[in-house]
Amino acid sequence: MAQSLDSPLGAETVNGDGFGLGWYPVSNPDDPGKQPPKPALFRSMEPAWNDQNLREISSTIRSPLFLSHVRAAAGPPVQQTNCHPFRHANWLFMHNGGLADFLTVKRDLTLAVDPALYPEIQGTTDSEVLFYLALTLGLQDDPIAGMEAAIREAERIGHEHDIRFPVQGTFAVSDGITLWAFRYSSVGRSRSLYHSADIETLRQMYPDAERLRAFGRRAHVIVSEPLNDLPGMFIEVPESTVSILDDTGYRHEPFLDAA
Amino acid sequence: MAQSLDSPLGAETVNGDGFGLGWYPVSNPDDPGKQPPKPALFRSMEPAWNDQNLREISSTIRSPLFLSHVRAAAGPPVQQTNCHPFRHANWLFMHNGGLADFLTVKRDLTLAVDPALYPEIQGTTDSEVLFYLALTLGLQDDPIAGMEAAIREAERIGHEHDIRFPVQGTFAVSDGITLWAFRYSSVGRSRSLYHSADIETLRQMYPDAERLRAFGRRAHVIVSEPLNDLPGMFIEVPESTVSILDDTGYRHEPFLDAA
Amino acid sequence: MAQSLDSPLGAETVNGDGFGLGWYPVSNPDDPGKQPPKPALFRSMEPAWNDQNLREISSTIRSPLFLSHVRAAAGPPVQQTNCHPFRHANWLFMHNGGLADFLTVKRDLTLAVDPALYPEIQGTTDSEVLFYLALTLGLQDDPIAGMEAAIREAERIGHEHDIRFPVQGTFAVSDGITLWAFRYSSVGRSRSLYHSADIETLRQMYPDAERLRAFGRRAHVIVSEPLNDLPGMFIEVPESTVSILDDTGYRHEPFLDAA
Amino acid sequence: MAQSLDSPLGAETVNGDGFGLGWYPVSNPDDPGKQPPKPALFRSMEPAWNDQNLREISSTIRSPLFLSHVRAAAGPPVQQTNCHPFRHANWLFMHNGGLADFLTVKRDLTLAVDPALYPEIQGTTDSEVLFYLALTLGLQDDPIAGMEAAIREAERIGHEHDIRFPVQGTFAVSDGITLWAFRYSSVGRSRSLYHSADIETLRQMYPDAERLRAFGRRAHVIVSEPLNDLPGMFIEVPESTVSILDDTGYRHEPFLDAA
Repeated sequence: MAQSLDSPLGAETVNGDGFGLGWYPVSNPDDPGKQPPKPALFRSMEPAWNDQNLREISSTIRSPLFLSHVRAAAGPPVQQTNCHPFRHANWLFMHNGGLADFLTVKRDLTLAVDPALYPEIQGTTDSEVLFYLALTLGLQDDPIAGMEAAIREAERIGHEHDIRFPVQGTFAVSDGITLWAFRYSSVGRSRSLYHSADIETLRQMYPDAERLRAFGRRAHVIVSEPLNDLPGMFIEVPESTVSILDDTGYRHEPFLDAA
Repeated sequence: MAQSLDSPLGAETVNGDGFGLGWYPVSNPDDPGKQPPKPALFRSMEPAWNDQNLREISSTIRSPLFLSHVRAAAGPPVQQTNCHPFRHANWLFMHNGGLADFLTVKRDLTLAVDPALYPEIQGTTDSEVLFYLALTLGLQDDPIAGMEAAIREAERIGHEHDIRFPVQGTFAVSDGITLWAFRYSSVGRSRSLYHSADIETLRQMYPDAERLRAFGRRAHVIVSEPLNDLPGMFIEVPESTVSILDDTGYRHEPFLDAA
Repeated sequence: MAQSLDSPLGAETVNGDGFGLGWYPVSNPDDPGKQPPKPALFRSMEPAWNDQNLREISSTIRSPLFLSHVRAAAGPPVQQTNCHPFRHANWLFMHNGGLADFLTVKRDLTLAVDPALYPEIQGTTDSEVLFYLALTLGLQDDPIAGMEAAIREAERIGHEHDIRFPVQGTFAVSDGITLWAFRYSSVGRSRSLYHSADIETLRQMYPDAERLRAFGRRAHVIVSEPLNDLPGMFIEVPESTVSILDDTGYRHEPFLDAA
Repeated sequence: MAQSLDSPLGAETVNGDGFGLGWYPVSNPDDPGKQPPKPALFRSMEPAWNDQNLREISSTIRSPLFLSHVRAAAGPPVQQTNCHPFRHANWLFMHNGGLADFLTVKRDLTLAVDPALYPEIQGTTDSEVLFYLALTLGLQDDPIAGMEAAIREAERIGHEHDIRFPVQGTFAVSDGITLWAFRYSSVGRSRSLYHSADIETLRQMYPDAERLRAFGRRAHVIVSEPLNDLPGMFIEVPESTVSILDDTGYRHEPFLDAA
């Protein structure tokens, strides 16, 4: 909510063109199941900062893993279907950034989506098309390879249309178990991306810090920009890197090379 | 959702002017607490029938007790703050019906609300004012007496303004433990009100009934009109009656006398 | 507004999933110009019946030619970009009906749209794609031939996917000078379509008729269903017919043949 | 639209909680009438910056006198009825600022409104109550005296509740002929207020200025903050002053004294 009204590191400081929350349910301890559970979505075209339903839901729902997004619309209209996260089966996807000159490449990108997936596209954003392109190119089998292939395909199509730097952004992908957060742009200067340091360590460093009270003991947070200014709390994810978060914590791997 | 598009027994068959859902959380078995929990609200000015968020939330959230409402706006505008249920502390309130000639009596009714409660009124409906009048007159101590006093006061004020039949409706009130559903109108011909029969008994009567699958074993439902046409499933609540639902099931008591 | 809440002849009697108004400005008598003027749009995802802005605008704006639409969403979501009329340059387009099994044919239909027009598609409805298909196939040069070609193409694509009756509907097209209203369905039983009789003649027939007061002396109205029950006021447009309305009045021409 | 996303001089730089436009129609030269015409309203709870309908309407409608407002909600909820301008008969009213600790004084302020006007209050803002208080105290007979009386009454009630500086703001009032713009706050440091210099003079000073192209020859503009940075174009209205704009141009008069 705070970052919808003021995101000082963002390309736009106001992100008032809708928001979204996608959350995975708490698994039933008596029947944990083999299948990752399907996430639920709450998306709205209102600004997040004054949305009463968002306050109610975010103070009510418990979830071990959730993604949330505030939008500053570039071209595609402000409507619920254009709000992130996007969902396919147990997968969620969000994007902070954009595909350059999207209307020029939209048709070619959309044609590259598996015709069996095409009817699932509900909105009109570059981000959703890129998600379906990644699904087409193997995201569910190997998220990192799928994202690499999708971004490479978007760059190839962009270059065919004389777009020099086609892809810009950070990307979040989850299957309900693991969260992959990518930082990549064709030009090599991507939107900002941070993850939190180990909360337990921070508590020992700052036993009195009010700013830590909002976080549970095992909280891990990946964010576009720091949620507070506690020194050491938020660590920048480097360019062309994917940050992988699972039960064992974070780890970084190189992701693509900006040409 | 179905009744928002078609409520054949209603004064209006289309209830597309917003909706609301209020639900009490599942109590924590390790810490059941002494306080009834505060309910959460999800309210929207959209029609319920096509609301994607409502589908997501109602298929995700588990609650032992919830109230939901679809609205056909008479005079007060279509806006979230005019959607039922209304909430005060752990109490929820809904109304199907209206106060006759509300704009004529609105000022007097509003003045009768406890000045300490007055600032909590967020919308502009007759129903919300009646709720705050009932809170003023003791709803939290004795819900039946509080509703009686509020309705009598609304009738008194109405009669002062030469309104012959000031109050019409059914009313639902809950504190999170018990649900009171009132059927009363000044004219003695109130909006419809039903509760479900015992589901276990119905299952024995109709072992194959598809229409029972949607209900849990201990489900109890109070509704403006039947949700299906299974003979014996929905039982009409009589005029000038309150139906009280708690862990022990339903019971009826007389409520006011239409003059 | 009335028909949004109750359209007794429609496939759905409630059309509460948004609405739209497209109007051509009054031409400047001092500078009538050679170009047909670009129409303005007011579209909303709210039900029309309670929309305050629609009341304000429709009681304020003067226009020699306007189109209005109320929507009952089939599959595509309730959002402003899915509300009719759709606009391209000085052209407006509306549709009452649908393309059968749209998600199955959507990709092929969309691919058949001129790539130069493709980026203009803003929503996700069958109707908008059909409009862009008609624009691709010559609507602006010859509206009747363009609509014929688009419908034949939609039927061809539908048949390829084993859809027996691909196209259903009535269609309104205008360039700001002339209004073409088509009634056609693959199965030969289309949605209803009417136009008004000559208002002056009606005034002579019914000098006292209150129901004529709302219409100006030169009013011509084409509607999905009659606006009142004055005998002789609304004349049904036959199946497989286009009704052409311009300064000289209405005329009918055959339009396609249902197979 | 620009100032909704960024108002650098405002108490809040983002005004994304709805907007409103009120406009008086062009008078009919053949029938100018004696009565000032009733203004039309277009109000929405969406941010102005991306509202498609606002773009359509503001590029279509011609009006000799209009008021527009973008809102940053303090307490009262984001809903259409809380958007300015507010209307009564041929009068429009807007407010930039607030009544301190409104919930504390709301009941007393509302009780001070003429009971005959009370039912017209549709929203829940301090601004609308102040408008109805001014109507109660003679706004229509003498706008300056009416505003003075309303502000003095609001200050009196505020002081009774130990609120030191009850009123803050700039206020715009019009009857369709004249526009009164007030700058006043109890503390003597009011929100900013400017009016444009004479456009013809500016054109002579800056014959090439692109920033003047958007203004007609007889344009007069009163704004919360300058619309461009052309030196000399926008002139600050002093504290405790009313700027009166009519066919003869602007003039300033003292308005109240901050105690």
